Amino acid sequence: MQLGLAQINTVVGDLAGNREKILAAYRHACDAGAELVLFPELVVCGYPPRDLLFKRRFVPDVEESLIEIAAQIGDVPALIGFVETNPGSSGRPFFNAAAWCRNGEIEEICRKCLLPSYDVFDEDRYFAPCPHPKIVSFGGKRIGITICEDIWSQAPLPERPRYEESPLQSLQAAGIDLLLNLSASPWHEGKGEIRRKLVAGVARFCQAPVVLCNAVGGNDELVFDGDSLFASRDGTVIASLAAFREEVRVIDLDAPRTSAARSPAAHTPRPAIADIEGALVLGLHDYARKSGFEKALIGLSGGIDSAVTAVLAVRALGADRVIGVSLPSAISSEHSKEDARQLALNLGIRFETLPIHTVVEAAQRTLTPLLGETEADTTEENLQARARGLLLMALSNKWHALLLTTGNKSELSVGYCTLYGDMAGGLAVLSDLPKTKVFELAEYLNRDGEVIPRSSILKPPSAELRPGQVDQDSLPPYPLLDAILERYVEWGESSRDIVRAGFPEEVVRDVVRKVDLNEYKRKQAPPGLKLTPIAFGTGRRLPLVQRYVS
Amino acid sequence: MQLGLAQINTVVGDLAGNREKILAAYRHACDAGAELVLFPELVVCGYPPRDLLFKRRFVPDVEESLIEIAAQIGDVPALIGFVETNPGSSGRPFFNAAAWCRNGEIEEICRKCLLPSYDVFDEDRYFAPCPHPKIVSFGGKRIGITICEDIWSQAPLPERPRYEESPLQSLQAAGIDLLLNLSASPWHEGKGEIRRKLVAGVARFCQAPVVLCNAVGGNDELVFDGDSLFASRDGTVIASLAAFREEVRVIDLDAPRTSAARSPAAHTPRPAIADIEGALVLGLHDYARKSGFEKALIGLSGGIDSAVTAVLAVRALGADRVIGVSLPSAISSEHSKEDARQLALNLGIRFETLPIHTVVEAAQRTLTPLLGETEADTTEENLQARARGLLLMALSNKWHALLLTTGNKSELSVGYCTLYGDMAGGLAVLSDLPKTKVFELAEYLNRDGEVIPRSSILKPPSAELRPGQVDQDSLPPYPLLDAILERYVEWGESSRDIVRAGFPEEVVRDVVRKVDLNEYKRKQAPPGLKLTPIAFGTGRRLPLVQRYVS
Repeated sequence: MQLGLAQINTVVGDLAGNREKILAAYRHACDAGAELVLFPELVVCGYPPRDLLFKRRFVPDVEESLIEIAAQIGDVPALIGFVETNPGSSGRPFFNAAAWCRNGEIEEICRKCLLPSYDVFDEDRYFAPCPHPKIVSFGGKRIGITICEDIWSQAPLPERPRYEESPLQSLQAAGIDLLLNLSASPWHEGKGEIRRKLVAGVARFCQAPVVLCNAVGGNDELVFDGDSLFASRDGTVIASLAAFREEVRVIDLDAPRTSAARSPAAHTPRPAIADIEGALVLGLHDYARKSGFEKALIGLSGGIDSAVTAVLAVRALGADRVIGVSLPSAISSEHSKEDARQLALNLGIRFETLPIHTVVEAAQRTLTPLLGETEADTTEENLQARARGLLLMALSNKWHALLLTTGNKSELSVGYCTLYGDMAGGLAVLSDLPKTKVFELAEYLNRDGEVIPRSSILKPPSAELRPGQVDQDSLPPYPLLDAILERYVEWGESSRDIVRAGFPEEVVRDVVRKVDLNEYKRKQAPPGLKLTPIAFGTGRRLPLVQRYVS
Repeated sequence: MQLGLAQINTVVGDLAGNREKILAAYRHACDAGAELVLFPELVVCGYPPRDLLFKRRFVPDVEESLIEIAAQIGDVPALIGFVETNPGSSGRPFFNAAAWCRNGEIEEICRKCLLPSYDVFDEDRYFAPCPHPKIVSFGGKRIGITICEDIWSQAPLPERPRYEESPLQSLQAAGIDLLLNLSASPWHEGKGEIRRKLVAGVARFCQAPVVLCNAVGGNDELVFDGDSLFASRDGTVIASLAAFREEVRVIDLDAPRTSAARSPAAHTPRPAIADIEGALVLGLHDYARKSGFEKALIGLSGGIDSAVTAVLAVRALGADRVIGVSLPSAISSEHSKEDARQLALNLGIRFETLPIHTVVEAAQRTLTPLLGETEADTTEENLQARARGLLLMALSNKWHALLLTTGNKSELSVGYCTLYGDMAGGLAVLSDLPKTKVFELAEYLNRDGEVIPRSSILKPPSAELRPGQVDQDSLPPYPLLDAILERYVEWGESSRDIVRAGFPEEVVRDVVRKVDLNEYKRKQAPPGLKLTPIAFGTGRRLPLVQRYVS
């Protein structure tokens, strides 16, 4: 069988635009000889639609759009993800469903069985579960139809299964010749390999070839990586589609299943850091373009974070759409100003300078009658950061440019950042990348020649808010900090456990306390692109006011 | 039977503090003659613990704390809400449970059957459902034990039942003499009446008296109102505990069930606006005090929103803990400055003035080389708002005072507010109160004499960011705006439907467009106190980047 995979990049809620894209991909796949075309999960409305689903006309409009799409489907069937109203008289109002469309009609509707409600997912909020997956007969084959999470109930997954049900067991028991999966499976580091192993395991378990068609594109915090897969029944990944870009391709399910037949991408995993670049560039591009911004604006400090952000912005949007602004204070060092200028020169972007001392002094003059001659503390450091935020937001307003924040995950974790200061902006590009990985990414971005000045990478990181200040005055060395943060934030370990693992107690207690104290800052942070299994944002929901100490 | 109700105010995650509070309430109830003491849902850890549950030591620590509590329980049993590790080998990791403690032991564990996963609730993220509620025999009675949502599957609820299961049917079929319910049921306008009708209906359905013990107190956005209830088997509400404050009381379940035996609070509902005041004062108090702030700081514009916020802050924290700051610009009218000063005088709070022109002019001087002499637009208006945000945050930093934002729900809905400007602060007190209700609340706060100057209430609302500006230059009249917003934001109606209901099409399209465009601002807003069924925040989850037009 010739199977078309339509790995397309939809916009959430853009029913007309998505419809056009779906039909164009369908026609393209048919022209290339497809006998059946597979689309991603919820492709009609984009994923995740979240509470758009509760708007009274949204699901009826999605269903209407599906009918319009089906009307254009010919003899080659298409399997298309959409939202179906639950016709039952109780339970959640919708199903996460896939429509088997052919000859202008919706011939079959298949419903999702396992509904993820962990991390960034909230599907139990909207959807009713279906007890068993459907098997559709076509071209002499029994085809099991599953949607995303339905196949994530299989090794190699967390020791404790999340679900009591197993749609795969039901398919295995019934016997199938092919398993199809419509996915909107967001990326995080290492996800590509996990998904490959999963699909291979599913193929062996069901004794059937498996084809997974994944969504691609950035939607808010989430980046869908594509990387759609075809594995033969023995669990060999025979083909995969592009990572981090759209692709419509027809694959021959009956081609010889030797390793020679594999497409090159199917078995040469890229370096992890290349995936991080790919995810960030796609996420940044789609956040800006899907929300209608033509330009991005970045405060360039001469440091590594803003340099990395600027390079990513140029790779996402083009040099002519990125503006770098240096906002030096009296404390800023000459080499910082020079590094910022050199970076802009290397990138070929517009570069402007706005000194902040006038605003900072005006604020100090205004405050002196109230604050008197109190000793300088973080108040004065924050003033500088907020003067920068205020000036950058004025440019953002006047130029209709998306202001990017440049803080990394390490800083955001311990609150080493200023609310309404360096945290001001529309998208936090690096907020899920620990500082140690920012260094790694900087080196990688320089792989074909020096774009980021070496001194930005090599000098000791500094917020430059006090004369002579370096980050390590207030924070433990980044390798130590990041190791503690990974355990505390991502693994959920307690400080007791982290200390027991050999980390210095005083440092651990201080880091953990700072993470807990700064939940309120993260509540007001712009959305950040998810790169790790536990990113700040919708996937991590902590109370702001709480007193648990572990 | 003499039943003790411990309607107490816990702090999320404060296991030691909550333990003390639980034991103190237990002893108090026993001293007052209780034969059984009922506590709220999840009282050991506070509600909602959210992702604290995923910290590896959290649930073991909660279980440990429960064991310590149980060790102090004597012959009078206590029914105490806690989190139990799911001992099963698959499914969600925990149960939302209640422990029947007696004589130092945990004698029975009862588990929640219906798990809310709508609005602000995410219980499917954490808890496995229990198929049937437990019946415990005590004092010659068969007592059905339910937890919060378990009884919310009964009329008078939304026409379409959320659940396929009905724990109440199972209790009715088994036959019970008394139904107990441990609740953490957050308040919104009208919730008291809904809960009374529900409890009355449940009593009639089960043909048994019902006692509901609710949590009280503010936790982040949520305000739990207490108002614990006892209804006789014929559905008469016989007694209720205090609204919006702690109370431990013993009620006699066997007292004569005539209306004369009712406590006064049980059948005289307070005016709706009094509940709004109660919720806001409690929510503000608990947000500040549970997060350790001694003082609150408010920018006083002379307008009605900041005046109402200041009065609430004084009622929550006391006049000596509230500081009002006037931040006049060249545009601010004399009467505005005078109204701000008069309000502070009426309230007896510290009052300071910080003119913003120096900072605004410094920013304009800095920006002129880049922006040139472009025509003034919202950029310049935002500059003023952000100069205020910057100065107030400096005071907040230096004085360790909680900055309160004063914007109302109408403004926040259409984005008539400045990110990092008037939106800067730690708690958005009025962000779920539409402007028309702000007027109503202002009048109510003045009920015992003029606290808020009449001119603050009577003058046309203005942001005073342009000479002569009034809100109604940019927005429809507030009664019209609020009526459209209620339909669009709370009811989920489409603009087509709102127009069909008789609202002017041009106005509707403009309002709806503004609501959609400003999702990014609300993402970065401080938490706001929930007052309506659909508040911005955790109960409303819309994509930031989306293109649905209805």
